[in-house]
Amino acid sequence: MRPWRTVGIVGGGQLARMLAEAASPLGLTTIVLAEQAADAATSVAGEVLLGSPQRLEDLRALAARCDVVTFDHEQVDLEAIRTLEAEGFAIAPSSTTLEAACSKVTLRQRCGAAGLPSPRHLVVAMGTTSDEVRIALTQFCAEVGTSLIVKPARGGYDGRGVHQIEDIAEAAALVETLSATDDVLCEEVVAMSAELAVIVVRRHDGTATCYPPVVTTQVEGMCREVLVPGAVDADLAARARALALEVASLLEVVGVLAVELFVVGDALVLCEVAARPHNSGHWSIEGATCSQFENHLRAVCGLPLGDPSPTASAIAMVNVVGPSDGSDPLDHLEAALAVPGAHVHLYGKAPRPGRKMGHVTVCGQDPEAVSALAWRCATALGTEVPSELRR
Amino acid sequence: MRPWRTVGIVGGGQLARMLAEAASPLGLTTIVLAEQAADAATSVAGEVLLGSPQRLEDLRALAARCDVVTFDHEQVDLEAIRTLEAEGFAIAPSSTTLEAACSKVTLRQRCGAAGLPSPRHLVVAMGTTSDEVRIALTQFCAEVGTSLIVKPARGGYDGRGVHQIEDIAEAAALVETLSATDDVLCEEVVAMSAELAVIVVRRHDGTATCYPPVVTTQVEGMCREVLVPGAVDADLAARARALALEVASLLEVVGVLAVELFVVGDALVLCEVAARPHNSGHWSIEGATCSQFENHLRAVCGLPLGDPSPTASAIAMVNVVGPSDGSDPLDHLEAALAVPGAHVHLYGKAPRPGRKMGHVTVCGQDPEAVSALAWRCATALGTEVPSELRR
Repeated sequence: MRPWRTVGIVGGGQLARMLAEAASPLGLTTIVLAEQAADAATSVAGEVLLGSPQRLEDLRALAARCDVVTFDHEQVDLEAIRTLEAEGFAIAPSSTTLEAACSKVTLRQRCGAAGLPSPRHLVVAMGTTSDEVRIALTQFCAEVGTSLIVKPARGGYDGRGVHQIEDIAEAAALVETLSATDDVLCEEVVAMSAELAVIVVRRHDGTATCYPPVVTTQVEGMCREVLVPGAVDADLAARARALALEVASLLEVVGVLAVELFVVGDALVLCEVAARPHNSGHWSIEGATCSQFENHLRAVCGLPLGDPSPTASAIAMVNVVGPSDGSDPLDHLEAALAVPGAHVHLYGKAPRPGRKMGHVTVCGQDPEAVSALAWRCATALGTEVPSELRR
Repeated sequence: MRPWRTVGIVGGGQLARMLAEAASPLGLTTIVLAEQAADAATSVAGEVLLGSPQRLEDLRALAARCDVVTFDHEQVDLEAIRTLEAEGFAIAPSSTTLEAACSKVTLRQRCGAAGLPSPRHLVVAMGTTSDEVRIALTQFCAEVGTSLIVKPARGGYDGRGVHQIEDIAEAAALVETLSATDDVLCEEVVAMSAELAVIVVRRHDGTATCYPPVVTTQVEGMCREVLVPGAVDADLAARARALALEVASLLEVVGVLAVELFVVGDALVLCEVAARPHNSGHWSIEGATCSQFENHLRAVCGLPLGDPSPTASAIAMVNVVGPSDGSDPLDHLEAALAVPGAHVHLYGKAPRPGRKMGHVTVCGQDPEAVSALAWRCATALGTEVPSELRR
């Protein structure tokens, strides 16, 4: 077989942009299916097709020009992907993986069936009647308490679409509304002490490796800081790796799978997954021998996987978030680059308060020092430190 | 002043490609003036203008769209650059620097006047008569011996255009031919024990820093291997840095200046310079905190310089050279990526035997181990090991 050289990417966001940045040194060509000509990835992709990730003809036009198609996000039409697979196009990850990555309900069902540790949950199928919702919720709350997470099966990222509710009646009203258009997942609120993320990369033949578990700090559902290795003891880290690899194998992943885990007491509980490069792995661009972006490309192209080992003993990644005055982080590049050792990544997105605009990474010896420098750089770019993280 | 965001690059070769790769994470936009749509940098640049680096209108069209214009190579029309400077366009490096980088004669004259150590040399001005050439050469050879390097002032790279001659009559004939169209530089052959290169990066305000001196191995004038730090003792390294910084200051460089030095006994002698990122600095992409490409962009945009410190104790860079069977290194990517820790850079150029097609870098602890891995990866990509380097 001719080696694969051309990678199609559905979606033109920052993940596509960083995939294209990683593809260029390898001599691989990227073609991005973007919704807008100004999307983050369009300035660096080898070629840009304008179209919708939901439209079969647009996806087929992309697939027809590429050796393999992969994804910047999960907001794709699964039926269209299945059609393309049936037509013989190479898609990685496959529709089987995407189904679980797109639907929180499918993920819980598959992982639950495999005996993997998940929060206790209740699935309310789309179209369930009011009475049925109330009965099911009352029963569920008798078991787990009245603190609930309610989220529709599909859509939502960076915490959007996820609701924490403390009252059965309120929960029932929300579930009724949401279940009009989608299946709904209700989950117990687990008493977690930390959130970990593990980036797995897996090939078609089952070969897989993973990056070290990292501690992520989320504020209002958006990742704000990632520390590598973070305060994770060796035993917990080993169990987190094993669990993440098991999930990747179960979901038949090809490419990167980000597995988010809650630490609950001494145990690990599955939170969510993303079948694509993930914010919790951005540190790997400078902090690992082979980044999650290069490894995703290697995996989807059937190339050997690269070494995920960290190259420094302490690494901090902090997201650059659009400041409330609406100013553009790019206007503050001079101040940011004055921070010693800071690696700045800006995504070329139009500034908007609260929008993820980029990230910065600092590698070094001392965890506190790299974190302080990364925050200094991110704040120089306009990022406001959330009160939860002020130290 | 509005911060500079758009960098024009004259020339679409691999240096422009790697500049564009470094610009994207910073959120800077690149526009490349390329001669061919298939040039190495066109797939990754933000925008591509097709045109000639020798044509004023094409250069002006580029400059008019950019905050600052910089260069992939020196084959530019200096008069055109001076015209653009007079019109108020920002050009970095300036025509003053470019003149010395373009003309080996100007370089020798400026460095000689400043008392910097250079090989003994004879300048034969364009249009000198046969008799005058013979007299001057005879005098010069009486001083330095009959082993001579003869090269026209302009043009030539990777050793092209450089002739080593052992006979006065032959030298005279060659000088006569070359001096019909250009000034000609005749130099003594120095008894060098090694070649070093120092990458300096300098801002408009004179702030400058440099990467550690590296040992380069050239075969038939083309760089084949770079070892960092290589066998350079601390005193020699300090003197090499000081000399390189002095040259950069003398030439009023803005951006990267690569300074190639001969080690002759215990002394350092200036060989050549290039006022742009250079093959001897490619290791810095993975091997230094801030690469030569990012630092060149920082310097030409007036941004703070990044840290040039190496991040590993031993780094090897080996060039990927098109094999004699004409095959494409890209077809061998699978074998190359199986080499542990290898960073592969392919430039997207059409394969041709002997053509520089890419490079690979390996970072680690042990100089012999990283060199062996880098060569294993380069040979997996089809590179033939020159007999001079077989160990």
